[in-house]
Amino acid sequence: MTLIKDITFTQADIAKLEAEYANKRPQEILAFALKQFDNITISFSGAEDVVLIDMAAKIKRNIQIFSIDTGRLHPETYQFIDKVRKQYRVKIDVIFPDAAEVEGLVKEKGLFSFYKDGHKECCGIRKVKPLRRKLATVDAWITGQRKDQNPATRATVPVIQIDSAFSSGDRNLIKFNPLANWTSAQVWQYIHANEVPYNELHNQGFISIGCQPCTRAVLPNQHERLGRWWWENAADKECGFHEINLISNNN
Amino acid sequence: MTLIKDITFTQADIAKLEAEYANKRPQEILAFALKQFDNITISFSGAEDVVLIDMAAKIKRNIQIFSIDTGRLHPETYQFIDKVRKQYRVKIDVIFPDAAEVEGLVKEKGLFSFYKDGHKECCGIRKVKPLRRKLATVDAWITGQRKDQNPATRATVPVIQIDSAFSSGDRNLIKFNPLANWTSAQVWQYIHANEVPYNELHNQGFISIGCQPCTRAVLPNQHERLGRWWWENAADKECGFHEINLISNNN
Amino acid sequence: MTLIKDITFTQADIAKLEAEYANKRPQEILAFALKQFDNITISFSGAEDVVLIDMAAKIKRNIQIFSIDTGRLHPETYQFIDKVRKQYRVKIDVIFPDAAEVEGLVKEKGLFSFYKDGHKECCGIRKVKPLRRKLATVDAWITGQRKDQNPATRATVPVIQIDSAFSSGDRNLIKFNPLANWTSAQVWQYIHANEVPYNELHNQGFISIGCQPCTRAVLPNQHERLGRWWWENAADKECGFHEINLISNNN
Amino acid sequence: MTLIKDITFTQADIAKLEAEYANKRPQEILAFALKQFDNITISFSGAEDVVLIDMAAKIKRNIQIFSIDTGRLHPETYQFIDKVRKQYRVKIDVIFPDAAEVEGLVKEKGLFSFYKDGHKECCGIRKVKPLRRKLATVDAWITGQRKDQNPATRATVPVIQIDSAFSSGDRNLIKFNPLANWTSAQVWQYIHANEVPYNELHNQGFISIGCQPCTRAVLPNQHERLGRWWWENAADKECGFHEINLISNNN
Repeated sequence: MTLIKDITFTQADIAKLEAEYANKRPQEILAFALKQFDNITISFSGAEDVVLIDMAAKIKRNIQIFSIDTGRLHPETYQFIDKVRKQYRVKIDVIFPDAAEVEGLVKEKGLFSFYKDGHKECCGIRKVKPLRRKLATVDAWITGQRKDQNPATRATVPVIQIDSAFSSGDRNLIKFNPLANWTSAQVWQYIHANEVPYNELHNQGFISIGCQPCTRAVLPNQHERLGRWWWENAADKECGFHEINLISNNN
Repeated sequence: MTLIKDITFTQADIAKLEAEYANKRPQEILAFALKQFDNITISFSGAEDVVLIDMAAKIKRNIQIFSIDTGRLHPETYQFIDKVRKQYRVKIDVIFPDAAEVEGLVKEKGLFSFYKDGHKECCGIRKVKPLRRKLATVDAWITGQRKDQNPATRATVPVIQIDSAFSSGDRNLIKFNPLANWTSAQVWQYIHANEVPYNELHNQGFISIGCQPCTRAVLPNQHERLGRWWWENAADKECGFHEINLISNNN
Repeated sequence: MTLIKDITFTQADIAKLEAEYANKRPQEILAFALKQFDNITISFSGAEDVVLIDMAAKIKRNIQIFSIDTGRLHPETYQFIDKVRKQYRVKIDVIFPDAAEVEGLVKEKGLFSFYKDGHKECCGIRKVKPLRRKLATVDAWITGQRKDQNPATRATVPVIQIDSAFSSGDRNLIKFNPLANWTSAQVWQYIHANEVPYNELHNQGFISIGCQPCTRAVLPNQHERLGRWWWENAADKECGFHEINLISNNN
Repeated sequence: MTLIKDITFTQADIAKLEAEYANKRPQEILAFALKQFDNITISFSGAEDVVLIDMAAKIKRNIQIFSIDTGRLHPETYQFIDKVRKQYRVKIDVIFPDAAEVEGLVKEKGLFSFYKDGHKECCGIRKVKPLRRKLATVDAWITGQRKDQNPATRATVPVIQIDSAFSSGDRNLIKFNPLANWTSAQVWQYIHANEVPYNELHNQGFISIGCQPCTRAVLPNQHERLGRWWWENAADKECGFHEINLISNNN
């Protein structure tokens, strides 16, 4: 399927593309995304979605990458982000929350309000607003989310979709999830086979990695999502990055 | 099947029992073992084989338990052994290596000879000889080994066997492996469902746990055996506890 | 000496006050400061300057406190700040850096530029600018700096001074250093005697505490300043908070 | 003062030597000890008494060194002992406790009896008996104890003494304490100036180092002895190594 650049995708276009790419390899989906969009960025969380960077770097030079620094990441995650920057010789847009918003929340509720009031308020300020600001500057983005990460919220993640949660005005933001159909095991096979660097926290029992106070190591055989916001229900365990998953009829 | 106490089992008896018990639940195998033998002991490594203790404590009072303290266990493992002792109100025979043997090895080769010369020499002194000394005092023992722990060496572990590696003279030592057919996931389901205490190291990425210098956390999706003697081949990754596994026609 | 509120202190006034208070106890200096100024705030770094909060809370209700969250503090420091907030039932103004400035530096130089380019640039963005913004809203501030913390830069710290580095326009910002003449040992005696909470990092060999990547534990008998910006000279080991120390004739 | 080898020192000889050497440098005391006795050994705890090994290695080849491995040292201490062995190319007699004694105590009281019953019983089995066995094979030993380590028990430690606690029968065991008059600060100056390797635990807030469950990091300005057996009185904080300190008229 050949698509002409700068065309705004309709729901019908996306449906057709999803049908075409759903069973393709992550690298093919990624190659299509990077070819189709000039102004497209990879979302890097500091965890095993580093495979997207490794794959992209083998497809094209000068890829755009961003990461949200909530101000509360693990020291190991900051080190890992910088390691990736150096190893792949890429600039990474590290997006930071708004001072006034953080200050307002913290003064009122302290630095650990999420344990009591739920993580949505804090994630909203430290993650989602900075993300929205970043996504307003691009036409498409690429994420590492996978169906197996959260059966309650990600079971139907498509490989390509209109991200209506972050689209604005007249423009549809396109979202690619090239790893949607991969399992955690496949991601790690790729990491080992390609000697991709990984976050040191993975050596300490961490699987999924988010902010320091809201992430923990999991026990053997525990689902990775139990390492995130463990005081909340599985269905609430989304920070807002992938709000589109929570909107019905989302493809 | 009713067996009379104090009869020495023959290979034929064991074959019959194995056929009878191979598909039974661990608790049934354990109940049989504890009923059949008065002088029987549970081998506790300080890891998830704690489920054997939990199961046994629900079957019978005054169970015998032993653990080999090689002198090089993790601080967390010593704490865990003591936690189990207190919680289940049991005495644990903590077996210690012979001073002269440890001193001889360490003077000659230092405290980390295993990284260079392989773990067998050190395991021999710190684990296997103390084990042999302990096993010489009982008629049967119960271990937590499972087929899924090491495909290279444990794939055919039976639930009951004559332990010819540790039998002596005229007497056959019987070995029970009630968890042989359970998966790691089943063991952990049991731990969670029964609120069984577990070693803190399991919160730090450790699955299999042995001596401190020879055990490490594993990465997500890595097989637990990669956390043991990682500088050696899978087929060598047995400390000698289960030497019977390495003897052909072992059932 | 009785001073009338809302009078702007001159250099001469300050000299007279310094002479009067130089040898007084920290609590007396603090009591004077809190009585003299309504709009005065305590600077809390998340380290042992917590004693100022303990002392102030015994003098007066509703003290103002602020802390600079550079976005790179230790997890233990965030926990400690919140512990202090709860235990003393105070609101703490946690001041955050400007997103655009942080993003600009990090995109250009990565997250660890200070190891190569020195800490001033990063401190400027993450600490000094937020501090300047905060100090513009008060008439006076109270810090925990002591002469013994850095012989190269703090040997002559007075207990009261005009902070010309952060004064602006027509107004003199007054700075109180009630602990200037105390030793580290005295601070810790106070902490133990008054059961003041302290940062967990102090249990891990940390004495002075700043940002995570720029602070480390020190060896026995090492001066605490060796735990800060260890790749730089002692005379450069100021983040800019106490720039007045570096200005000659600083009263 | 010239002494003839193989002469048994009397109390009068020792008193004379103590007068002569009390104010000499550790290296001079050590040189005398090593010259005077052929069968003399340095006691190495795995902590900062490593300076004795560094000093001795500069005086003489083939020095004897021993260390008591209680079976409960920190992983970092085992690593450090081996590092010293390799760096100084020395064999170290690592003395191990008697299996039956350890097993007896642990079966009866568990692995942490010292928190309840005091450390003497466990130290007796894991440290003092192995020490006694080792000391029975030498004519003299050299220790790193210092007056400043424990004002309650070590304030009068001489540089040379008859160790009547470990002498036997017709023979006087001589004990040298070359660092008796040095401060902790002097020891660490020596370590830095001579690039002597040190235990990693010193980077984590540990000053004095013993067994893992009975040692902890200390807070800033805390006396190092507070890091040992913290649930007991200062006057009891000796493991029995230096029992002679507790005997009155100990020369």
